[in-house]
Amino acid sequence: MRVGDDPASVSYVTKKEKTSAEIGISSHIILPPVTITQTELFALIDRLNLDPAIDGILVQSPLPKHINEVAVFRRVSPEKDVDGFHTLNLGKVAQEDDTGFVSCTPAGIMELLARSGVDLKGKHVVVLGRSLIVGKPVALLALQKKAGANGTVTICHSQTRDLPAITRLADVLIAAIGRPEFVTADMVKPGAVIIDVGINRVPDPSKKSGYRLVGDVHFPTVSSLCAKITPVPGGVGPMTVAMLMSNTIKAHHLANAG
Amino acid sequence: MRVGDDPASVSYVTKKEKTSAEIGISSHIILPPVTITQTELFALIDRLNLDPAIDGILVQSPLPKHINEVAVFRRVSPEKDVDGFHTLNLGKVAQEDDTGFVSCTPAGIMELLARSGVDLKGKHVVVLGRSLIVGKPVALLALQKKAGANGTVTICHSQTRDLPAITRLADVLIAAIGRPEFVTADMVKPGAVIIDVGINRVPDPSKKSGYRLVGDVHFPTVSSLCAKITPVPGGVGPMTVAMLMSNTIKAHHLANAG
Repeated sequence: MRVGDDPASVSYVTKKEKTSAEIGISSHIILPPVTITQTELFALIDRLNLDPAIDGILVQSPLPKHINEVAVFRRVSPEKDVDGFHTLNLGKVAQEDDTGFVSCTPAGIMELLARSGVDLKGKHVVVLGRSLIVGKPVALLALQKKAGANGTVTICHSQTRDLPAITRLADVLIAAIGRPEFVTADMVKPGAVIIDVGINRVPDPSKKSGYRLVGDVHFPTVSSLCAKITPVPGGVGPMTVAMLMSNTIKAHHLANAG
Repeated sequence: MRVGDDPASVSYVTKKEKTSAEIGISSHIILPPVTITQTELFALIDRLNLDPAIDGILVQSPLPKHINEVAVFRRVSPEKDVDGFHTLNLGKVAQEDDTGFVSCTPAGIMELLARSGVDLKGKHVVVLGRSLIVGKPVALLALQKKAGANGTVTICHSQTRDLPAITRLADVLIAAIGRPEFVTADMVKPGAVIIDVGINRVPDPSKKSGYRLVGDVHFPTVSSLCAKITPVPGGVGPMTVAMLMSNTIKAHHLANAG
């Protein structure tokens, strides 16, 4: 479900629809008017929650300002919350309880690290950004007692003092603050692993679209310094979509298990 | 509710009962047999959940090993979860949603810091221990965007490499690992604020009880080095009880508001 025409949201939802079709998940995009009230949105979600033909429900963030986003995420049935934004599913991440859904970007980051042979055990993981959708859940995941995790985790944000001194401690740096090319070479320890979660549009008259996509990391200077780095676009973004598919399949199995 | 006769639990539950009586909250201790099954415990909790005369339910941790503690905490109605251990209430802490209950020890730590004039904004808060009951929720609280919080937060644990180097970064060090006098002077930055969450019994033949209580911090050497430190006993412990009372009053108001 997408409310409004945020250009990035349009692009994300299209990609999710396309990937669903490719792997045989049938998806249906609902486009309520941008003027929809919270009560109306709740009623719509309630109907989807009750519909046994629907395994997963995704409400694309951001929502219009007159709507309480967290309340909407919490209205989705936890069993259909394939985006992993429901309070209960976030709590389960903190509790290391696998029965819930992990939000897609953090889950994708952990999968990327695992598939790239990066074991966080004992490593210092610095997360830049404390958002509910990326920073906090990925910190909780990196901290878990599971194989591949067990990292020492630091979370930095806009109020952090002497940020470069802290990011330079990172064996693994996860940048998720939505500021174009914010992380520069002086903020990175040589040999670190860099996960760039940012997808920022910056004006570029040389492009037909008038913009280009850059991450939160200044790729040209940082990439030569670090051991591994995710590109933007093409790194964390596709993993997010993959995890959404994985969550949807899990939801389907859960709905049909009992 | 207390299941079994863990000596620390007996002492905690007695203190909670005594404090309740002092401030006019009527409390009733339920002592199921240590052989109670999880199903029976669930049934008991379900009855308490439905009883309108009960505002708050506390299941004293630890529970016997044959019982899934997280599942029991989640069985308590979130509206009566004055201990703040329910998955939904933990998720609300992550979401900075004040409508839930914050678990008592982390809430007590934040209150102690606030009342002692310690503003975490921009400070480096190092949490030693990643438990569900203290480490993770206090890290999430210290990280919040609220006045008094906004700390940069690092969480360390048994897998952390070169722990003293990390704890020495702390402007505020919160020790919650349950290892007697583990934090020594070489692990502390001069002038730091130290919160000692540990309550450990160590054998002491000179005491009538045969033991004395010490924290996770080696008080004699650390106290002369730091700016502020909480004593054990008498620091975080009483604050935990105070926050339980505060949560119970909140639960009562919530139950009678609508």
